[in-house]
Amino acid sequence: MPNHADHSNYSAGLSKSEVLESVLLSYEALSSDTSNWVANLANCSSLVWHAYHSLGIKVNWAGFYVLNKEVEGELILGPFHGKVACQTIKIGKGVCGAAAQTKETQLVANVHEFPGHIACDGDTNSEIVVPLVKDNVTFGVLDIDCLELNGFDATDREYLEKLAQLIIHSCTW
Amino acid sequence: MPNHADHSNYSAGLSKSEVLESVLLSYEALSSDTSNWVANLANCSSLVWHAYHSLGIKVNWAGFYVLNKEVEGELILGPFHGKVACQTIKIGKGVCGAAAQTKETQLVANVHEFPGHIACDGDTNSEIVVPLVKDNVTFGVLDIDCLELNGFDATDREYLEKLAQLIIHSCTW
Repeated sequence: MPNHADHSNYSAGLSKSEVLESVLLSYEALSSDTSNWVANLANCSSLVWHAYHSLGIKVNWAGFYVLNKEVEGELILGPFHGKVACQTIKIGKGVCGAAAQTKETQLVANVHEFPGHIACDGDTNSEIVVPLVKDNVTFGVLDIDCLELNGFDATDREYLEKLAQLIIHSCTW
Repeated sequence: MPNHADHSNYSAGLSKSEVLESVLLSYEALSSDTSNWVANLANCSSLVWHAYHSLGIKVNWAGFYVLNKEVEGELILGPFHGKVACQTIKIGKGVCGAAAQTKETQLVANVHEFPGHIACDGDTNSEIVVPLVKDNVTFGVLDIDCLELNGFDATDREYLEKLAQLIIHSCTW
């Protein structure tokens, strides 16, 4: 029987679509065991982190901010892989805050040109943030940062939006 | 002003005690901003992961299992860094389950010799698990795995038990 860790291993030479399709399949398999949002987002961060690294894409942060139930209008740090991160983000502020507010994916080729960008890590140059939305309510955002400019494209957007749909329907919030 | 990510950067040439002392100071600073357990354990996983990697210790998993409020006698996966992990562990089973049940640190030089060891990742060879205990109740465990045998010693135990104390008193569960 394969170990859970094997879900983080991707074969060499696969295309981005193939690797991200594999992330979707692994996430579906793993989340069929539990609807606990912390456990599911923790494993999802690992899947995404290892997927991008297998592709040689210099992702330096992959994880989640979720709606802070204690403070209205605020996101709070969820599970992630990467360096230590800002704990809270106001909805509407920065790239994550914009995705949460507009309920639309933010594909940012150069974060330094994004109005109100919050630099948790000054080495980040590009970013994609996909909102987790159900019944028109934002439950959180999937946030991925890259050390290089133009780190993400329409293929990332397509698969990560599918992943966001799987996440939102598999978790109890 | 330094970025949050700078907490994950450790100078070269420091001793293990110096690096782990720095983890304690960073955790204290970060957790002074929030008592949210998910945010604090997520940043703590990053601190511990980067600390061990700066020391050249081959840690392949660093993170948390917490008490599952939905299922009695069970731990569920919390924030972590590393490859995809088992979602649930019965209290009493394996190294994490033993730490949760006995409320004592488990310092395991060779996991393959540990009765009932659960292999989330077959590449793990040694492990340290420190229980998070308050008022004689186990809230979770800090779990760190190493690719090499004898990855951890009394110094790790000393500092990680101090870290567990900081965690248990800084978080709302």
